[in-house]
This record gives sequence, C-alpha cells and structure tokens, in this order.
Amino acid sequence: MKPQIKQLNVYQPGKTAEELQTELGINGEMMKLSSNENVYGPSPAVQRALQQALKNLHEYPDSSGRALKQTIAAHYDVAEASILLGAGLDEVIMMLSRAILRPGDVILTSDQTFVQYQHHAVIEDCTIVTAPLTDGKFNLTALSAKISADTALIWLCNPNNPTGNYFSEEELTAFLDQAGDIPVVLDEAYAEYVTATDYPDSFALRAAYPNLIILRTFSKAYGLAALRVGYAVSSDDWTYLWHHVKLPFNVTSLSLAAADAALQDQSYLTTVQQRNAVERQRYFASEVSKYLLPSQTNFVLVETEDIKQLNDYLLDASIIARPTPAGVRITIGTAAQNTVVIKALEDYFA
Amino acid sequence: MKPQIKQLNVYQPGKTAEELQTELGINGEMMKLSSNENVYGPSPAVQRALQQALKNLHEYPDSSGRALKQTIAAHYDVAEASILLGAGLDEVIMMLSRAILRPGDVILTSDQTFVQYQHHAVIEDCTIVTAPLTDGKFNLTALSAKISADTALIWLCNPNNPTGNYFSEEELTAFLDQAGDIPVVLDEAYAEYVTATDYPDSFALRAAYPNLIILRTFSKAYGLAALRVGYAVSSDDWTYLWHHVKLPFNVTSLSLAAADAALQDQSYLTTVQQRNAVERQRYFASEVSKYLLPSQTNFVLVETEDIKQLNDYLLDASIIARPTPAGVRITIGTAAQNTVVIKALEDYFA
Repeated sequence: MKPQIKQLNVYQPGKTAEELQTELGINGEMMKLSSNENVYGPSPAVQRALQQALKNLHEYPDSSGRALKQTIAAHYDVAEASILLGAGLDEVIMMLSRAILRPGDVILTSDQTFVQYQHHAVIEDCTIVTAPLTDGKFNLTALSAKISADTALIWLCNPNNPTGNYFSEEELTAFLDQAGDIPVVLDEAYAEYVTATDYPDSFALRAAYPNLIILRTFSKAYGLAALRVGYAVSSDDWTYLWHHVKLPFNVTSLSLAAADAALQDQSYLTTVQQRNAVERQRYFASEVSKYLLPSQTNFVLVETEDIKQLNDYLLDASIIARPTPAGVRITIGTAAQNTVVIKALEDYFA
Repeated sequence: MKPQIKQLNVYQPGKTAEELQTELGINGEMMKLSSNENVYGPSPAVQRALQQALKNLHEYPDSSGRALKQTIAAHYDVAEASILLGAGLDEVIMMLSRAILRPGDVILTSDQTFVQYQHHAVIEDCTIVTAPLTDGKFNLTALSAKISADTALIWLCNPNNPTGNYFSEEELTAFLDQAGDIPVVLDEAYAEYVTATDYPDSFALRAAYPNLIILRTFSKAYGLAALRVGYAVSSDDWTYLWHHVKLPFNVTSLSLAAADAALQDQSYLTTVQQRNAVERQRYFASEVSKYLLPSQTNFVLVETEDIKQLNDYLLDASIIARPTPAGVRITIGTAAQNTVVIKALEDYFA
C-alpha cells in the first residue's frame, strides 16, 4: 500500500436533511445550504435531453464525449483538442495531478482553498507549499514569492471556495508573468456567478499564457451536480498527454447529454445568474454584511470566532450550512430561504 | 509530467455504427457486437427508478452510495464496509492501483487480458510480470511460479476478457494457497453469464482468503454500461484504506438509482442469463465451433491466422466485431443477429 494515503481524511459526507431532522427533532423541512447547489435546478432542456438518452442504457458512453466537446468548443471558441472532460472537477483535478506530478514534486496553492488540490498531491507523494489568503482571496503576490525551481504545478481557485472572493485579471497576469512555463490551474467552478467586471477573461489569456489550465464545471450554475461533469481547457499538447490517464468511459451517457443541453440553454443560465446576483445583494445590503467576506459566488462566508456555535445555531433554525476553518459557508438560496437565513444571522449577531 | 505516461496508448474509441456505415457505403443497419453490451438492455425497473431520480439533478449524489451498498450487501451477504463503489470497474481498477502500488512495485497478471491492469501499473511506475494464457484462460500454475517477494498486486480475470474461458475453484484455491497475503484481484465482470458448475464461488472463499478482492459490474449482464457502476468487495480494513483515494462523488445519482433497481430485479437477470446461454450454445453447436475458444461469457473469441481479414469480412457483412491480439471477439447478440453472424463465419471458413 502507498503509506502516504493513511494521513488523508476519508471524505465524510454531511448528514442528509432527513437524518438531521430526526437527530435534532425538528418538525418541518430543513434547508440544505451546505453544498452550493443551484437552488433553481438545471434548464428544462436537460430533462428533454435525458428522456432521449435513457433509451440506450446498455451501450457504453461515447468515450471521447465528442458532441459535448463540440458544444463547449463552439461556446468558448476553443479547439476540441484542448478539452479534457471529467466526472466533475474532482476527477479533472485527479487526472491533472496524476498525469503531471512525480514523487518529490512541489505543488503551490493557498491555505483555505478547495481541499482536493492538496489531497491528490499527498497521494502523488509531493510537497505542498502554500501562502495565506488575503480578505478571502488568493494573495498572488505572496504566492509568486514562493515559486521555485521545484514547483511542478500551481493551483489557483477564483473565486475562492470556501471564501467567495476573487482576484482580478491584473493580479492574475502579474502572477502569470512570474510563473514562466509552470502549469497554472485556474479553477473557475463559480465563474458563471461572477458579476465583477475586472474578473479575468481567462479564455482570452490562453494565447499569451499557454501554460494556463482553465477548469469549468456543470455542477454549480448549470445545476447538474448529480451528474458529475467538469472539464479542463488547456493547450492541445498538454491535453493530449492528459488523455493518457483518462479512463476510457469516465463520463456517463446521461451526463454527457445533460451537460450538452444545459450549455446550449444560455438564456436559462442568464436567469440563474440574475436571480443569484439579486439574492447575493440582499446579504450585502443587510445588517450581517459586516460579518461576510466579499462574494462573487452563490455562497457567503460568515466570519466568526466560534464556528461551531454559529453552525449549531443555524441548525436549530433548520438551516444546514457548512462549517469550514475559515468560517461558516452558506449557499445563497431562494428568496424565501434567504429571508429566513438573513433574519437568523441578524438575530445571532444581535 | 510523469514521463512514463507517454508510453501508454490513448484509448481509441471504435467508430460508431453510423460512421462505419458511411465509410463502408453499407445500406441498412450495422450490428454493433464489439463491446459485449447486453443486447437485451436493463430491467424495466431501471427506467422507473430513473424517472424518480431525475428530480434532483442539482443535488450532489450520496457520497457513500449507501442505498446501493445496502442492496449489494444484502444480495451477497457481505458487510457494507467491505464494498468500494466506482464509476465502472475501470475506476475501481484505477483506485486499487493508485492506493496499493508504489513506484518499483511488481504486478502479476496474464498476457492477453483486460488492458487496464497494466495501464495503471505503468502510470504508477511499476514493473509488470506476466504468464501466457492457456486455452484462453489464466494459467494459474504458470502464474504462481512467478510470484516473488516484490509482487505487490495480482490481477486475475475470470472468465477472461477478451478470450472468454474460465478457471475453476480448484485451480483458484491452489493458486491462493501460494499467494500468501498478497492482494489478489478477481475480476468477475462476466460472472453472471457463467453456467459452469465448477466456477469459483468467490464470495464463499473470502473467509479463508481475506486477501481476495472481488470485482463485479453493472455494465455487462445488468445492461447499464452507459451509467458506469462497478464495485470491489474485500476486507473491511483494506476497503477503508481505499476510500482514501475515492473521489467524494464518483458515481452519479442516476447511476446509483439505476444499479440499485437492476440488482433488485433478479428475475429479469435470470431471463438475460438463460437467453444468453441458449444463444451461446448455438455458436458451439455450429460448424464454426472449432475456431472458437470455450466461452462462459456473452462473447466468443474466433481464433484465426489473419485477424484483420476476418474483421474486414465481418464489417462487409454489417457486423462490427472487436479485433484483439488473441483473435476476433464477437458479442453474442440476439437470436436474429446470431443467425447472421454464425452464417457469415461459416461462409468465411468454408
């Protein structure tokens, strides 16, 4: 056995709403706002596409995911050969780690970011170097000071999960100018929720920075977390190499069909974006805004001294949030849900 | 980058029936008999379960796959804690390789077996030791002679893919007695198609051989290749360790629901088994039987000097088979399909 895997945490799934309801003796429905799922669900076009795809369950999926790649390629004006499809970004992060990292390599990322970057570096027997976040976003100045000759892979999360804040295109290009040809992953899982105008136009930066690896997902704004589809866009050469570690049939037929339909319905996505932006603004216009980190996502991060106490308080109010080392993360829900959550937070801090 | 991945083959998906039809100028439908898919499709109960599961596409799947594990545990009388769920056996094989193998370790398997065992050993920078097949099945005597102190993992495929023949329980236990505590994977992807009475009762052997790792899949007899669900059953301790490399949400919600429904409909499975056994017997009762290796699966392996020639001949007859180094592999299809295939083979060898 690989000895290093024993130091990892096995993922502990959160309790379901039903389990918590029973455990806490709560009547009525719990609000599950712990996983940044899209409370509006996916485009109605997805259901139609799935009914069609249900006919051939006994056949293996299209190994290359050709149809979905064509839709992604057209949407972002990129080559099909630059796209690596995965079963959610979890699998894409795994494939990149597995293809790139050799034992003893160094990865560079931030503290308090998505845990899977470090998880796979441990499995690959690598060293992890981090810099702290500043105001809930990657501090790219601090991070660039830590680049060394041993740095094999850099992970940036923008906006950052679990804190919600983002870095600008100016900050990013200054960093990329220091990174040389080291592969730089830009995890943009929440990009569709961003409204800030100085957010990086990452696809436009690919020409100047061929070492850029952009990650996008269908699990967040596209509302397809159940179906596990994410992808990386990078240089054709690197993408070809990474296909050497891709499992032959890593994305299910139903997932391919659903993601394709979701991406083609941009007007539905616009509705989701607008609703989320309006609801996010309510948090920052409320009394609790002073406890929140800035957010460009579909969640807010509540900074507090006693994370467990706040999380328990919310649970008693039927609100399932996510306690993290950085604070309590709460998915921005529907208008009705947010009214309840904001009131609960106001009462807590009063 | 890991230098060793460059020596791997990127999976080349077979051309679709439509592509081949156009390319070969064939009118009428092609028979896709290249991937050992279940031509009868899955249980009707699957469609009902999926319609229910389609309601919550925006929510992440149950990370632990609890409901499906409970059904598997009840079906085989094993502990839930002994089950590792994967996105098809491809992912299970990847997880086992990634958790167990250290650089420089040795894996032991056969020539002409499922390619993914060796594929992942290359990525993990391991040495591969093999013994030849005998009559299309693992030669366990030859294999046991190759066990050494460096052997970290042993892969057995029974019945073997792509050749179709099997080894008996007596052969297996003799081998296991030599393997000591080395992890021995028993890939039984085609087990549900076996009718031979001396086929190993692998679940019963677990008590005597705790190093046994049994693999089963929903992609073959259960007719769910599109949805990617397979699993390993082994000791609780090892299974817990392997969960350290499992991605948090590796199996989609729809896949979990479909597999659960499929496993619960054992009467449908019986129908599939019986139909396949009848159709398989037709091949072995025909004139072409002398060119076939024995099969306990839903495919036959045609041994011939000129593999490409036979494959091209079948293509011209609208039959998509799978050329392999061991011969031309043909999925056993419906009664009507098999009539055409057997006639084509008889004509070819006449």
